[in-house]
Amino acid sequence: MKYKVGICQFEPKLLNVSYNLDKMKELLLNVKADLIVLPELASSGYLFNSKSEVEKVSEFAMDGPTATLFKSLSQHNDTSYVVGFPEKFEKKFYNSAMLVNPDGKIYVYRKTHLFYEEKLRFESGNSGFQIFKAKKDVPVGMMICFDWIFPESARTLALKGAQIIAHPANLVLPWCQQAMITRSLENRIFSITANRVGKESNGAKELHFTGMSQILTTKGEIIRRFDKNEESVYVTEIETNDAQEKKITEFNDIFEDRKTKYYNLN
Amino acid sequence: MKYKVGICQFEPKLLNVSYNLDKMKELLLNVKADLIVLPELASSGYLFNSKSEVEKVSEFAMDGPTATLFKSLSQHNDTSYVVGFPEKFEKKFYNSAMLVNPDGKIYVYRKTHLFYEEKLRFESGNSGFQIFKAKKDVPVGMMICFDWIFPESARTLALKGAQIIAHPANLVLPWCQQAMITRSLENRIFSITANRVGKESNGAKELHFTGMSQILTTKGEIIRRFDKNEESVYVTEIETNDAQEKKITEFNDIFEDRKTKYYNLN
Repeated sequence: MKYKVGICQFEPKLLNVSYNLDKMKELLLNVKADLIVLPELASSGYLFNSKSEVEKVSEFAMDGPTATLFKSLSQHNDTSYVVGFPEKFEKKFYNSAMLVNPDGKIYVYRKTHLFYEEKLRFESGNSGFQIFKAKKDVPVGMMICFDWIFPESARTLALKGAQIIAHPANLVLPWCQQAMITRSLENRIFSITANRVGKESNGAKELHFTGMSQILTTKGEIIRRFDKNEESVYVTEIETNDAQEKKITEFNDIFEDRKTKYYNLN
Repeated sequence: MKYKVGICQFEPKLLNVSYNLDKMKELLLNVKADLIVLPELASSGYLFNSKSEVEKVSEFAMDGPTATLFKSLSQHNDTSYVVGFPEKFEKKFYNSAMLVNPDGKIYVYRKTHLFYEEKLRFESGNSGFQIFKAKKDVPVGMMICFDWIFPESARTLALKGAQIIAHPANLVLPWCQQAMITRSLENRIFSITANRVGKESNGAKELHFTGMSQILTTKGEIIRRFDKNEESVYVTEIETNDAQEKKITEFNDIFEDRKTKYYNLN
């Protein structure tokens, strides 16, 4: 199926939810697509100093300000979105992403592998890697930022049937964008990494986010990679059927060829 | 531990075992190291037309001409070698690699994931991914060529304690050398991919091998990557302890951080 997918890269301002939501609305209001992916913690910024800062900007997945904005945008543009936000749930906080569909449904992924001081601010995600249907029933898997370094994340999503991996990120290390080429190749899935730009400082440290959000084909080809600083939205058309084709030669199907009895992965 | 590792890249001639062994001897005779890796099917060439051609050049792992040469070289140079060869075992043929140690011991790996028409010529490997000790007791894991596209291959070896992945190859697709950067990074292991050069034709088809053999650090840095055509040996010194350090930040150990209960990998 022909499917329009996009990335939205911008610079969220730390702790300034209303600015961030307004900025995303401004960038997205006139862009129609089937699925657009936005960065990790896009509504809140990243470099919290404390759990109480997280508490101030965290929200319930289903009816917080991020859900409200994206339900409205999704209906207005007939577009599914994946966007990162700090989730509040039973007095706990998760580094989460929501998939918001035009029919108003919302699905949540909670980041499984926390990076660095995120471990002090958030609970380790307990949603697991699930597949959800985005617009036109296309099966999408979500993972967030540092999940990329564990091949099991994308592998689990692909084996469960994801055709597209939606990957919100706040990347500060230099490796992910190139490594995602391997993730697309080894699983024959589309991957959409939406990273943020800019820098944040909390006095003690300063982080520079690397931008270069990208959309990759199932063969790891770069359809588009943003530069390190631009705030922008880009939409392209892919053929989702490509992700169902795991045969890479007349003799090789990369899923059927797996020899699980020889894998020791615990 | 300081450890000298090397790659040997050359052009084997199809079905010409004596030429190939002589060529490897010429390239290696005056090179001392701790471990040198050579290409897949280095003794025989690659593009067989039939099983009977495989039969002509296949050999027993422990006392065939390849084992004989490398036992002699290993003793002479006090160097461990990993080299690919077509293995004969109980009337079956495997695309195998042997680790030959200065003490005369030989360990065999049989390629798990066969590529393309190899499936018509060889049995699927039944050795699994095991760890063997090379010179100075450094734990080495072997995988061959197309095994790279399955993240489970390197992952299994790394989880079992490999510090170095010895990776003989006959690569014809363009992706592996870059993808091995991801394999080193995600497992924090050294990887040594020894590829062949040149082309082979069997009338029906012609294959061009891509060279660019490489040695990567545990951070995916390229210590040396050969060009596409050279026949050469290169030795460098690494620090094997780097492969035992899985901590990549104060808060993140990439093995301890794995959340296996959320992985579905069957």
